[in-house]
Amino acid sequence: MVGIVIVSHSAILAKGLRELAIEMAADKDLIHCAGGLEDGSIGTDAIRIKEVIKKADRGDGVAVLLDLGSSVMSAQMAIEFLEDEEPELEVKIADAPLVEGCISAAISASAGLTLAEVISSAEDASEHKKLF
Amino acid sequence: MVGIVIVSHSAILAKGLRELAIEMAADKDLIHCAGGLEDGSIGTDAIRIKEVIKKADRGDGVAVLLDLGSSVMSAQMAIEFLEDEEPELEVKIADAPLVEGCISAAISASAGLTLAEVISSAEDASEHKKLF
Repeated sequence: MVGIVIVSHSAILAKGLRELAIEMAADKDLIHCAGGLEDGSIGTDAIRIKEVIKKADRGDGVAVLLDLGSSVMSAQMAIEFLEDEEPELEVKIADAPLVEGCISAAISASAGLTLAEVISSAEDASEHKKLF
Repeated sequence: MVGIVIVSHSAILAKGLRELAIEMAADKDLIHCAGGLEDGSIGTDAIRIKEVIKKADRGDGVAVLLDLGSSVMSAQMAIEFLEDEEPELEVKIADAPLVEGCISAAISASAGLTLAEVISSAEDASEHKKLF
C-alpha cells in the first residue's frame, strides 16, 4: 500500500484534511500529517516532514501533497535526507491542489494503486471542474 | 472590501485554512468559515453557509471557496436563499482549488480588488505549478 503525507504550513489544516480524506477512503492508517512547526505555529520543517514520511511508509512508497511556498522546498529537502537514510523508500511529491489532490490520492491509494498511479490521480484533480 | 467564505465538509480544515490565509493577507475580518455541520461532524449545511455569507459581507460582495461534492450544491442553495433575503448582496462561487484559491482570493481581497477580480485570481490558482 502507498502511504500519503500532507505537508501544510498549518497543523490545523493538515489535521482537518486528514479527517476528510479518511472519511472518503475509509482507511485510518493511510494518511499522516506534517503540518506546521513543532510548537504549533505556522511553517514547514524538513526534519519533521522526513520523520512523518518514514512513518507513512507501508512498503509501496509515499505520496506527498503540499500547500504552497516553502512547503515545496521543505518537502524536497526531506526527500534528499531520506535518499541517504532510506535509499529503498520511494517518495514522490504530487504537483496537485492540496485538498482535491489529497482526496483523489487517498481514494487511489486505498484501492491499492501504485505510487505512480496515486500521484497521477492527485495531479489530475487540478483539471476537475467544480461548477457546471 | 470583498469578503471570503470557506465552505468545507470539515470544520477543522476550514479553521486551518482561515488561519493560513489570514497569515498571508494580514486581515482578520476577511475570511469566515462554514465548515462541517452544527455538531462538528463532517458535512455541509446550506442554512449555515447562508448565515456565514451574510456575516462575511463588507459591502462589496462575497467570494465562496469550497472543497468538493455536496459543498457545491449546499453553497448554491445558500446563494438561492440569499437572492430572496438579501437581493443586493452579490455572491460568487470560485471554481478553484480550495487552499490555493482561498489564499489567492485572500491576497486579492485584502488589496481591495473587486469581487470579479478576487474570483478570477482564485480560479487562476489552479494553473500554478508547484514543482519546477
